[in-house]
Amino acid sequence: MTITGRDLITIDYYKPEELEWLFNLAWLLKNEPDLRKRQDMLDGFTLAMVFFNPSLRTRTSLDIGMYELGGHTITLNIGAGVWDLEVEEGIPMLGDKVEHIKDAAKVLGRYSDAIGIRSFPKMNSWAEDKKDLAIISFQKYSDVPIINLETALYHPCQALADAYTIREKFGAIKNRKVLLTWTTHPKALPMAVPNSFSLMSSKLGMDLTICRPDGWDLDDEIMARVRRNAKAAGSTVTITNDFEGAFEGQEVVYAKSWGSKNYYGRTPEELMARQPYHNWTVGKEQMARTANGKFMHCLPVRRNVVATDEVLDSESSIIYDQAENRLHTQKAVLLGMLGSPEIHAKLAERFHKVTHGPEGLGVSAK
Amino acid sequence: MTITGRDLITIDYYKPEELEWLFNLAWLLKNEPDLRKRQDMLDGFTLAMVFFNPSLRTRTSLDIGMYELGGHTITLNIGAGVWDLEVEEGIPMLGDKVEHIKDAAKVLGRYSDAIGIRSFPKMNSWAEDKKDLAIISFQKYSDVPIINLETALYHPCQALADAYTIREKFGAIKNRKVLLTWTTHPKALPMAVPNSFSLMSSKLGMDLTICRPDGWDLDDEIMARVRRNAKAAGSTVTITNDFEGAFEGQEVVYAKSWGSKNYYGRTPEELMARQPYHNWTVGKEQMARTANGKFMHCLPVRRNVVATDEVLDSESSIIYDQAENRLHTQKAVLLGMLGSPEIHAKLAERFHKVTHGPEGLGVSAK
Amino acid sequence: MTITGRDLITIDYYKPEELEWLFNLAWLLKNEPDLRKRQDMLDGFTLAMVFFNPSLRTRTSLDIGMYELGGHTITLNIGAGVWDLEVEEGIPMLGDKVEHIKDAAKVLGRYSDAIGIRSFPKMNSWAEDKKDLAIISFQKYSDVPIINLETALYHPCQALADAYTIREKFGAIKNRKVLLTWTTHPKALPMAVPNSFSLMSSKLGMDLTICRPDGWDLDDEIMARVRRNAKAAGSTVTITNDFEGAFEGQEVVYAKSWGSKNYYGRTPEELMARQPYHNWTVGKEQMARTANGKFMHCLPVRRNVVATDEVLDSESSIIYDQAENRLHTQKAVLLGMLGSPEIHAKLAERFHKVTHGPEGLGVSAK
Repeated sequence: MTITGRDLITIDYYKPEELEWLFNLAWLLKNEPDLRKRQDMLDGFTLAMVFFNPSLRTRTSLDIGMYELGGHTITLNIGAGVWDLEVEEGIPMLGDKVEHIKDAAKVLGRYSDAIGIRSFPKMNSWAEDKKDLAIISFQKYSDVPIINLETALYHPCQALADAYTIREKFGAIKNRKVLLTWTTHPKALPMAVPNSFSLMSSKLGMDLTICRPDGWDLDDEIMARVRRNAKAAGSTVTITNDFEGAFEGQEVVYAKSWGSKNYYGRTPEELMARQPYHNWTVGKEQMARTANGKFMHCLPVRRNVVATDEVLDSESSIIYDQAENRLHTQKAVLLGMLGSPEIHAKLAERFHKVTHGPEGLGVSAK
Repeated sequence: MTITGRDLITIDYYKPEELEWLFNLAWLLKNEPDLRKRQDMLDGFTLAMVFFNPSLRTRTSLDIGMYELGGHTITLNIGAGVWDLEVEEGIPMLGDKVEHIKDAAKVLGRYSDAIGIRSFPKMNSWAEDKKDLAIISFQKYSDVPIINLETALYHPCQALADAYTIREKFGAIKNRKVLLTWTTHPKALPMAVPNSFSLMSSKLGMDLTICRPDGWDLDDEIMARVRRNAKAAGSTVTITNDFEGAFEGQEVVYAKSWGSKNYYGRTPEELMARQPYHNWTVGKEQMARTANGKFMHCLPVRRNVVATDEVLDSESSIIYDQAENRLHTQKAVLLGMLGSPEIHAKLAERFHKVTHGPEGLGVSAK
Repeated sequence: MTITGRDLITIDYYKPEELEWLFNLAWLLKNEPDLRKRQDMLDGFTLAMVFFNPSLRTRTSLDIGMYELGGHTITLNIGAGVWDLEVEEGIPMLGDKVEHIKDAAKVLGRYSDAIGIRSFPKMNSWAEDKKDLAIISFQKYSDVPIINLETALYHPCQALADAYTIREKFGAIKNRKVLLTWTTHPKALPMAVPNSFSLMSSKLGMDLTICRPDGWDLDDEIMARVRRNAKAAGSTVTITNDFEGAFEGQEVVYAKSWGSKNYYGRTPEELMARQPYHNWTVGKEQMARTANGKFMHCLPVRRNVVATDEVLDSESSIIYDQAENRLHTQKAVLLGMLGSPEIHAKLAERFHKVTHGPEGLGVSAK
């Protein structure tokens, strides 16, 4: 099994068994001493990363991941040392943008072996943001695999690390009780992380509860896919607005704030509307209701707003493992996308080492 | 033959036979599987790139090129994370600039094996911009080879890729009919690309037509050298202001806008003066007059301003090959400048593979 | 001997014999052809550099140094493509900073093998700046060695290069007469360089004179440590405000401007107060009083303000050797911190080559 030459725009692109294969590969890369460090498996390969927005974890983990595989990364920060890009098609380019994304995509595809794109939503119109024009243009015009480094809709690299971390902590993942809870925050944030976490956890058969104030629902189309995923996997999806009750019996608590589609692009109104929920901060009282639940967050996190220091720094918090696993899971994706058949044949021999667990996963049981 | 240790400020620095050698070397690096990817030919070598202005292609292609040769690149963006540099000599440095370019040049020359400089004109005074102070200071004070990554006067890396691409498409290059045509544009742009293309095409014996509105002539000294080049090579240089007629029978159309020396530093007046030429956009009507001509542009291009989508995306457009060839020709320059005698001896054995064409060029005949 | 896994916040962290060992290691890396260039000694290792402020020498020399040792560097510019970091603990993060330094430190420590931090003082309150919160937070929360790339208090990498350069020029270093002189400057600058130079030169037993206007003393605690160092080493520390007399008989002149603690955070008042010293510029008249003294500066230097072109460009000026030695001494630090026992055992065999000088230093005698 492999994912040679395929894009990663959303985890919908991969079947459950392909995700399984990626987790096993990531496990090998993390745990097998001879595979852990500097390899020549991607010797000569370059990943071009195009950032329309800031990044710490994504930028660092992919850059170091490529190096550890023997490859190379070039990082382009749009608008900072690199021309700003026009995404609209067919118009006379008489404004500020000096280059069309079509041309940037075509050219970068000639120089590199894969392209990563980070492009946050503009937060003016959900209909517009949902188009994810930047990454879709790169996908359309570039001849190399495209990796989503977080767009308006998706953050699949995060979701891969999230799911891997849950497997690492629990072993068996099926019907784990996971809570994705909205929290308070000084800003209306994008929905990419909750979207991708919901899609991933439902696809892998976890029993997902989403807790959010009424009016803060995720996108309907995304939710329809989440429900289809759960049905196919034989798991449940529950929506609630009960911030206290939602924690009852959960094995995983994933905290994340996001903006309301009802007030999209109208920040002052949204901030007013969310006043009643200003105390939706995950504290030890909430965590005490869980079944000794693990606490997760994608970072960066607003401490003592989204969750208290007490929770973030507790034994139950697995936020740093989660961040570290970005490195290992992304290395698996890069190797899956770009590795030669010879390398994949070699790696296949190692897979028996990770296939002895209760569900064919070589991590410690719960 | 080689160019060991020599600067590349303008293509005038190289003789026609040295350019020929570089094209052949680039051909090998592009086409020979064992030379195509990751080599240790420049293992341990570092190129320092100093950008006073933005860049996508140049930055990316040189960075990846060095990696593929086994070398390393460090990119410094002046004013963004790096001190701004004073270029004037002998003055008390009491202003905003905290470091003199002399010191930056000396120091970078101690750390690296070659230095690339991008420094656009300020567009206030042509007499001042023509001095190309930034790159000339680096050349004066640094002990390592200097590569021009585009300055007020020249863009030799672009010209090398341009000429290589024409050879790649046509084989024989002598007396090819090439049109360099000015186009409309919302800004007064630098002249580096048209200067270097004119110098290069005339040096290699192409029959060059330059089409521009009266008043948009290139620099007189540059044009004198272009004419000398053509005389030496037995080719022609034609200047015209007939935007329609100029396309007649051309084999190559190179579109590029630039500012007028007559209005240098007076943007509003220039924009007024170029009103009559607002429709100088290369469209399919113009291309239809050519002898099945290829369309070229250095990118970034303002679509539907400089040329229409129809032209840019047509079969005749070779803009992406042109951009890709930046990579291969620059790798040839870097290898020529920095490669050891042993490596050059080894490469020399491979040159028979590219010396069987009608003019000693290993590319498919027209 | 080695410094495996240890931080470098200030040169106080290392004993004189450890500094000696680092200088010898740097000598080997600079002078032994087989150790000079591309090694696999740090193959697979990544240094993450976090810059809160600009840098040319530090950034470039560490990046190239890691490459030459076989390692890798990732550079993060805070506020430019990377989230701004909160350093205060325990507060609700409701302001502009989206990530806490604690989390950034923890995460970068999971991805990389060492972390370098540059964080200049804010120049509002010396009491606040003295805390050096950014680097101290990284030290507290990250599990990998931390390297100081210049903070409010210290610039140990500079001091290492400074001392190495003096040894390189003089051989025996004990009781060398070195002058650290304040100079005029258009801005109130940080004290990290004079602090670290004073700590280093006193520790190595040089006879240190500090010349500054009354009111421009270095921090009392730092100076107490400098005096203790000198006492332990059997050398002298002299403070003077006699800009002309101070040069008499000096073997090394180290020029550097810094702000006054008396006017800290009150720039206009300080600039007024330093009016009487506007002519404290090191010129050839001052250098003529020295014992054929060498001129040093850490760069960037304001030419014809801090020192004249005549001095900076003279035979006595060793500023570029000083800058170059940043590369070699930092490579020694990185190798000392991160190198495996096997590599250190191998290197130990080479040390006889540098242990034949008058004081066990393999550099030419004076």
